[in-house]
Amino acid sequence: MSSEEPKGAALPVHAKDDPMVDAENAPSKSALKKAAKEAEKAAKKAAAKEKEAAQRAQQAAAADEDKAVDNYGSITKAKETGVIHLKKLNETHADQEITVITRIHNSRVQSAKLAFLMLRQQGETIQAVMAAAGDDVSKQMIKWATAIPVNSFVRVTGLVKKPDPAIASASISNLELNVKKIYEISRAMEMLPMQVKDCERPPPESNEEGQSDATGPIVTLKTRLDNRVIDFQTDVNQAIFTISSAVEVLFTDYMVKAGSRKFNTAKFVGAATEGGAGVFEVTNYFGKSAYLAQSPQFYKQMLIAGDCESVFEIGPVFRAENSNTHRHLTEFTGLDFEMVFTNHYHEVLTFAENLIVFIITTLQKSYAAEIATVQKFYPRAGDFRIKDNKALRLNYADGIRLLKEAGVDTSEQDRFETDLSTAMEKQLGKIIREKYDTDFYVLDEFPMAVRPFYTKRHPTDPNLSNSYDFFMRGEEIMSGAQRINDAGELEQSMRAKGVDPTAEGFQDYVNAFRQGCRPHAGGGLGLNRIVQFFLGLDNVRQATPFPRDPQRLRP
Amino acid sequence: MSSEEPKGAALPVHAKDDPMVDAENAPSKSALKKAAKEAEKAAKKAAAKEKEAAQRAQQAAAADEDKAVDNYGSITKAKETGVIHLKKLNETHADQEITVITRIHNSRVQSAKLAFLMLRQQGETIQAVMAAAGDDVSKQMIKWATAIPVNSFVRVTGLVKKPDPAIASASISNLELNVKKIYEISRAMEMLPMQVKDCERPPPESNEEGQSDATGPIVTLKTRLDNRVIDFQTDVNQAIFTISSAVEVLFTDYMVKAGSRKFNTAKFVGAATEGGAGVFEVTNYFGKSAYLAQSPQFYKQMLIAGDCESVFEIGPVFRAENSNTHRHLTEFTGLDFEMVFTNHYHEVLTFAENLIVFIITTLQKSYAAEIATVQKFYPRAGDFRIKDNKALRLNYADGIRLLKEAGVDTSEQDRFETDLSTAMEKQLGKIIREKYDTDFYVLDEFPMAVRPFYTKRHPTDPNLSNSYDFFMRGEEIMSGAQRINDAGELEQSMRAKGVDPTAEGFQDYVNAFRQGCRPHAGGGLGLNRIVQFFLGLDNVRQATPFPRDPQRLRP
Repeated sequence: MSSEEPKGAALPVHAKDDPMVDAENAPSKSALKKAAKEAEKAAKKAAAKEKEAAQRAQQAAAADEDKAVDNYGSITKAKETGVIHLKKLNETHADQEITVITRIHNSRVQSAKLAFLMLRQQGETIQAVMAAAGDDVSKQMIKWATAIPVNSFVRVTGLVKKPDPAIASASISNLELNVKKIYEISRAMEMLPMQVKDCERPPPESNEEGQSDATGPIVTLKTRLDNRVIDFQTDVNQAIFTISSAVEVLFTDYMVKAGSRKFNTAKFVGAATEGGAGVFEVTNYFGKSAYLAQSPQFYKQMLIAGDCESVFEIGPVFRAENSNTHRHLTEFTGLDFEMVFTNHYHEVLTFAENLIVFIITTLQKSYAAEIATVQKFYPRAGDFRIKDNKALRLNYADGIRLLKEAGVDTSEQDRFETDLSTAMEKQLGKIIREKYDTDFYVLDEFPMAVRPFYTKRHPTDPNLSNSYDFFMRGEEIMSGAQRINDAGELEQSMRAKGVDPTAEGFQDYVNAFRQGCRPHAGGGLGLNRIVQFFLGLDNVRQATPFPRDPQRLRP
Repeated sequence: MSSEEPKGAALPVHAKDDPMVDAENAPSKSALKKAAKEAEKAAKKAAAKEKEAAQRAQQAAAADEDKAVDNYGSITKAKETGVIHLKKLNETHADQEITVITRIHNSRVQSAKLAFLMLRQQGETIQAVMAAAGDDVSKQMIKWATAIPVNSFVRVTGLVKKPDPAIASASISNLELNVKKIYEISRAMEMLPMQVKDCERPPPESNEEGQSDATGPIVTLKTRLDNRVIDFQTDVNQAIFTISSAVEVLFTDYMVKAGSRKFNTAKFVGAATEGGAGVFEVTNYFGKSAYLAQSPQFYKQMLIAGDCESVFEIGPVFRAENSNTHRHLTEFTGLDFEMVFTNHYHEVLTFAENLIVFIITTLQKSYAAEIATVQKFYPRAGDFRIKDNKALRLNYADGIRLLKEAGVDTSEQDRFETDLSTAMEKQLGKIIREKYDTDFYVLDEFPMAVRPFYTKRHPTDPNLSNSYDFFMRGEEIMSGAQRINDAGELEQSMRAKGVDPTAEGFQDYVNAFRQGCRPHAGGGLGLNRIVQFFLGLDNVRQATPFPRDPQRLRP
């Protein structure tokens, strides 16, 4: 506050200290008289000066009195009021006084009497003007407000105005706020590990640390994830997680409307079902070991065997696989469903196709703004295309044929022994996009050899199975099938795949089919992958709030 | 089929083998003539007999020919048709031919020409009549159908009829089915470990094995849970899990309508946050240990600090506590929410009260049939009472006062050091039910000493805190509070509770509040407990599909 502080009145010069009076160098009488007169004159002059200075001081004090002292400071001074969310603000609020609770995105002092704050709420920004005029805003208030560290939370009351020209740097460019009150709710530290504005630039493709470009520091995915709480605050992350939530809720709505019930099956299982490989082990389970379920597959089928007819689950899936890729996590959110059918498993396959079409088209209709926000930052993938709003269903053999026609060597796949590689899947995605103008398609009738033991064999071609995968932009988002519903057939299939049906981890599962079970089919979707591939994100971690991989357990 | 098999025609007696012709004992000419005449007569007689026998055989074959042979047998013989769910069947279907897919609940042979099957689908039962008359149903078909083991799945086509009198033993007593076709879909083993009908009697109060009563074998909770797939098939379990699913879906709907977003936070955490006690440890996390989250508390607050404003989560919560009670599990489903507020944490408290009232009143309105089914088996608790469809909110101190007035020793609680015991909570539930006529109430302003370190202290009384618990029938279903949103205040509170804020498991959490965070509050509900106490079930395991406790990891 140094340059603006009142300086106090100048000290009056007192007669006794007048340097003209010198007793030791004694003067003549006339000189004394003259001196006395001069002294009197000087005293009068000094008194006048003193009076003038006192008046000046009084004036100065009056001018610097902070009439806005109640309009800023700690939140404890604020009166309780309603507040409006920045996303709800529109031109109908012009010339109205409103209150918002926002972060300070940045602040700029123009002069002692004028400053601009950029306010931010969930990625939305608006310019707030602080002008010292009238009794609402003082210079002291401006000084105080512009000293608040960036990212702190404030409660701001102001008059909504339509700026001319529009404020290009704010997301709400057609409105601004003339501040009348501002209170600090929660203070950010002066130096943040990273800035939200730096995070609003997309990460570099290579994710190498230490890169930089012309626009400012590059923030790698690692740094973002290390500081996830700040990273969440960007408009792009707010949009990604709005869409992620919507996918879950739309999935739930669709299942419930179809008469399905939501279950939460056990994540602790008593025995590892795949010989321990790929399974996380909890060693302190009351004197024994427990294992974490790699999928709710067995449990949802047991619910079907228990007459639940149609079930779904949303929950964590744990995979102890040392896969360090753009689409693998050790923990992800599975959207699983399983249901009986009347005549043919294609009833379930069609249901699942319609489910995905419903989710995609609803997202495109109801979340266009969020999709646009994400695309601004991750533009490479482009719009998600779904022709005629329906799924394209091909047989696996058709997929192989399309690859072959494009010159891909599919000799391994031709022998029904090997699944498509990730590279082949991506290439097939491109071929299908060109040929069929769609980013969502289904492959049906996979070879039996590449599917798990519980998959139902094709009724006429023993090399094939009643199973399907779903793809978005050439990447798998779901795997599903008709399941074996007879214990004897299941045991035979297990033995054929080298699995012992009498092992502890399989007994309850196999026994479930000894007491009668309807034919059923289902599938398992990865929420994180749906969000990743629908939005065209580079990395599944961007679609995961707190991702977990072989290297990452924090935050 | 032995007794009913066609026996074949009797063998015709041939002339050559007539015992009356004996060449060695040569007779006279007249005798020969006479004999010839007699032989001729006998041959004629034999031929007539032969003809008659052939006719008889033909007649018999015609009588036993199975004209219904295509109307029963393997499901592969069935034509594809639409089917109707038993729960959808009503009197408008009378005199119509319908097809259902059901289990055989039991079967009773009246005669070779008449049998009754009880068909069951998801706890609903209907009587099916098989009468050998006309060409639709044969004796062979009845014999085949009544030999199918109980619990097997069949596909039955029949004519809906209104029986007079009604079928008291069927849940659909006003309708029955005259069978025309029946095919076996999936065969149950002959001897099931327990019968669904035995499971439809409530478990004994003591849960002791080996008890029995006059109505049939007692099936303990342990046996039911060991054979959960069969147990699920009872009408009471179908109803319980319909309600459980509804609670989750209603919770989701309410949160989404309030603008909240659904998140799935990490279940793997890098460090145990309470010194390892009560925490499950995964020892094979790629060369290090990971721990299972005991609650999403830290993560949902970090999302709030990341500007998510209102979040909720439905997911597993893991507790390594050796509690073997009627309401503790090592894994349960948490319904968690957290949100910022504008002026006072009571905004969130009121929101949460309205949420629970919404769930309870919607269940009572939309799931009355399911509630009635459960009450038939667990009648002790009676209807859930919620006066004027709103929550009763008392302060903790009021609760203590009510107990004191009832003669309970609350001296420990008076010193703000000890929480209410479970017994006290139950007693308070009874007192409140009598005094206020409600089973749902809230206690607010708990002593700070009995709440976790992240709880916000009461602004004027340092002994108290801005925290609350929700109770149903005197049992806690939710705990919640305003949380500390300032890093310095949080560190101080942690130290005061003997917790080191610099420990690895707390760093990310505490740091979340260094970059500004709005005041917020929330709560954590236990889905399993809500279902248990709303329905008045004896044990939380009855409201859990595959319960996990210190003893149980299967099925």
